[in-house]
Amino acid sequence: MAIHLDHNATTPCLPEVWDAMRPWAVEAWANPASTHGAGRAARRALEDSREEIASLLGAWPDEVVFTSGATEANAMALAGIRPGDLVAASDLEHPSIRENMTLAESRGARVNRLPRADRGIINPRDWAALCPEAPNLQVATLAGHETGAVQDMAALIDATRRRFGDAGAWHIDATQAVGKIPVDFHRLEVSTLSFSAHKFFGPKGVGALLVRRGVSLPPLFVGGGQQRGRRSGTEAVYLAVGMAKALRMAVDGMVDRQIACTQLREGFLAGIAPCKPWEILGPLAGGLNHVLLIAFSGVRSDMALMALDLEGISCSAGAACSSGSSLPSPALALIGLPEEHRKSVIRFSLGPFLNPDEVSMAGSAVAKIIARLRGPHA
Amino acid sequence: MAIHLDHNATTPCLPEVWDAMRPWAVEAWANPASTHGAGRAARRALEDSREEIASLLGAWPDEVVFTSGATEANAMALAGIRPGDLVAASDLEHPSIRENMTLAESRGARVNRLPRADRGIINPRDWAALCPEAPNLQVATLAGHETGAVQDMAALIDATRRRFGDAGAWHIDATQAVGKIPVDFHRLEVSTLSFSAHKFFGPKGVGALLVRRGVSLPPLFVGGGQQRGRRSGTEAVYLAVGMAKALRMAVDGMVDRQIACTQLREGFLAGIAPCKPWEILGPLAGGLNHVLLIAFSGVRSDMALMALDLEGISCSAGAACSSGSSLPSPALALIGLPEEHRKSVIRFSLGPFLNPDEVSMAGSAVAKIIARLRGPHA
Repeated sequence: MAIHLDHNATTPCLPEVWDAMRPWAVEAWANPASTHGAGRAARRALEDSREEIASLLGAWPDEVVFTSGATEANAMALAGIRPGDLVAASDLEHPSIRENMTLAESRGARVNRLPRADRGIINPRDWAALCPEAPNLQVATLAGHETGAVQDMAALIDATRRRFGDAGAWHIDATQAVGKIPVDFHRLEVSTLSFSAHKFFGPKGVGALLVRRGVSLPPLFVGGGQQRGRRSGTEAVYLAVGMAKALRMAVDGMVDRQIACTQLREGFLAGIAPCKPWEILGPLAGGLNHVLLIAFSGVRSDMALMALDLEGISCSAGAACSSGSSLPSPALALIGLPEEHRKSVIRFSLGPFLNPDEVSMAGSAVAKIIARLRGPHA
Repeated sequence: MAIHLDHNATTPCLPEVWDAMRPWAVEAWANPASTHGAGRAARRALEDSREEIASLLGAWPDEVVFTSGATEANAMALAGIRPGDLVAASDLEHPSIRENMTLAESRGARVNRLPRADRGIINPRDWAALCPEAPNLQVATLAGHETGAVQDMAALIDATRRRFGDAGAWHIDATQAVGKIPVDFHRLEVSTLSFSAHKFFGPKGVGALLVRRGVSLPPLFVGGGQQRGRRSGTEAVYLAVGMAKALRMAVDGMVDRQIACTQLREGFLAGIAPCKPWEILGPLAGGLNHVLLIAFSGVRSDMALMALDLEGISCSAGAACSSGSSLPSPALALIGLPEEHRKSVIRFSLGPFLNPDEVSMAGSAVAKIIARLRGPHA
C-alpha cells in the first residue's frame, strides 16, 4: 500500500493539466516578449491565462504577477517592509512568511505577533489589540497549512478599521485556500494575495502574487522588465497555462472535491477511532475539510511518521520544508497545545482523488501503529 | 512558411525532454522536502539531476543552485554588490545584468563599463585598464546574445591577475553558451555562472546559478530554507529533470549541432548574398556559429522585422525582452557601429533542427525584403 496523506505539502499535476501545457512548451514555444507572430501567439496564451486566473479569483488581469511559486510571491509582498515599520503577524504563518518577518526585524522593522489563536483561528478582538498604533502592514494566512483553519478576513479587517479608522495594508497568504475554498480578491479587500499552482493539482514552479491596483511594490529582482517591471525573466507560458487550467478545474469541481474530502475524512476518522485518546487541534467546523491536525497523546510523531512511512503512508508533522527540523512548529504554542503534546502531532491532509477504501484502511493502519507505539500499558 | 530564426530568444522544449519530465510531475510528484518515502524519491531525482548538470559543466553538485531562470540567477549573483564596491562590466551584457548594474549604482556602487569591444570581443588589455584599482567584482558574458562573440575568459582573468596580482571575483553569464559550446566551471576559474534551460531546448521556468565552493551570497529571498538556504521554495523536480535531460542531449549532440548550424549558416548567407551591402557585426571566427548579427545599410530594422514577420520569418533586433523598445542596444555602440547604422541591425539566430532548405529560402526571402525596403534607387 502506498497512500499520500500529505496533500498540503503538494499535489500531483493532473494529466489533463499536463496535456494542456504541452502545446505551449513543445509546439508554440516562442518567447512571449518577442514581437514577431510566434511571440505574439505565446503572449496571447500568457495573457489568456492571466485573464482566466484573474476572473476565477475576483481580480483584474493587471493585478496578477506570475512568480515561481508562493515563496517568491510572499517574499515579493513583504519586500516593501521598511526599517521602523510596524507589522502585525502571527506564528500561524508558513516559513516563507515567518522567515521574511525575521529578516524584516533584523532590518529594523517591528513585528508584533499574535500570542494566541485557539484552534488556529484568529480572534478579531485579539487582532485589533495586537498593535498600539495602526500597523504599516498586516499579514495573515487565509487557510492554515497546519490547522486548516480559515480566517474570517472580513471580521479581522473590520476590527482593524474600527480600532484605527482604516483597514490598512494587508498581505494574505492564500496558498492553501486557492482552489479549495472560494477566494475573491477584491471582496477580501487586501493589498496582496499569494498562491501556488502545485497546491491545487497544477504544476510546481509557478505561482502568483495578486497586487491590488494602486499598490506599489519594489521588484524582488530586476532584469528584462517583463510583467511591467514587477517580475523580470522570460515568462514560462506553458506554466501559466497549466496554472490556469488547474485553477479552472479546481473551481469548477470545488463542491465535488469538498464532498469527496468530507467522505474521505469520515472514513479516515472511523479508521483511527480505536486509538483514542487523540485530539483534533484545528477548527471543528468551517476549516479546510481535507486537513486533520491531530495530537496522539503519549506518541512521538517522528517515530510514528517513520512507522507510517514503512507502511507506505505518507504524512507529516507540518510544513514539508520544515520536515528535517526536530523543532515543533511555533503554531502549536499559539493554538494553546501544552508543550508536552507538541511532539505528538501529525498532520493528515487528504486529497479528493484518493480511494475511499484505501483512506479507511490507512486510518486503521494509523490506529494500529499508534497503539503499538504506545505499548501495552498505554 | 513559418520559420524561427530567433533561437537566442528561446528554443522549444524537445519532445524527449518533455516526456522525461512527465513522470516527475504527474506520477512521482511528492515534495522533495518531505521526509517520507515519496518525498525521498523526489529528492533523489532532484539530486540526480543536480549531479548530472554539475558533471556536464565541470562543477560539484553542491555548487548548483536551481533558480527560475537566468534572470533570477544573474540577480542572485549580483545581489552581493555593496555600496562603495567597484564593479567592472561592459554594455555587452543582457538586460538582466545591465539592470542590476544600474540598480547597484543607484545604491552607491561604482560600475566601470568597457568603452569598446570590436566585434563584441573584449580585449584583455582594455579589460585590465578598465579599473584604477582591483574591482570587487568583474562581470562578463561568456557568449554574447547579440553578437555571438565568445570571450576568452582565461585571457581576461590573466590580464586582471597580472595587473592586480589577483584574478578577483567574477560572475559569468553563460546563458547563450551552455549547451552550445563546452563550458567547464572550474576551469573557467570564476565565482558564479548563470544559465537557463530554455536556451538549449529545455523547459522555460528553470535555470541555475553555479556558485563556487567558499563563495557566499545573500539569498534573493528567504522562506522554507530549501537548497541550503540559498534559494527557498519547493523545488520543481520535473523541471530539474528536464534541464538535466536537455543539457545531456545538448552536450552529447554538441558537435552534430554545431555542424548543422554551420551548414545552415552557409545556406542562409548564400540566400541573403544578393542584398549586399551588409555587414556581419559579430566575430568572423570563434563565435557562436548559429548567430548572425547583420547591419543592412539603408534599411530600418523595425520595418524589416515587420515585413519578415508577414512572410513568417521570426527574428529580432536583439534581446526579446527589449523587443518593445525602439532604442538600439548599447552593445552596438560598444562594438563600434556608427550611430547611423544602429537602427539597421537584425539578429538571426539559427537552430540545429531547422530544415536546411527552409533556411536557404528564408535567406532569399530576407534578400528580397531588404531590396524592396531599400527601393529602386538603393
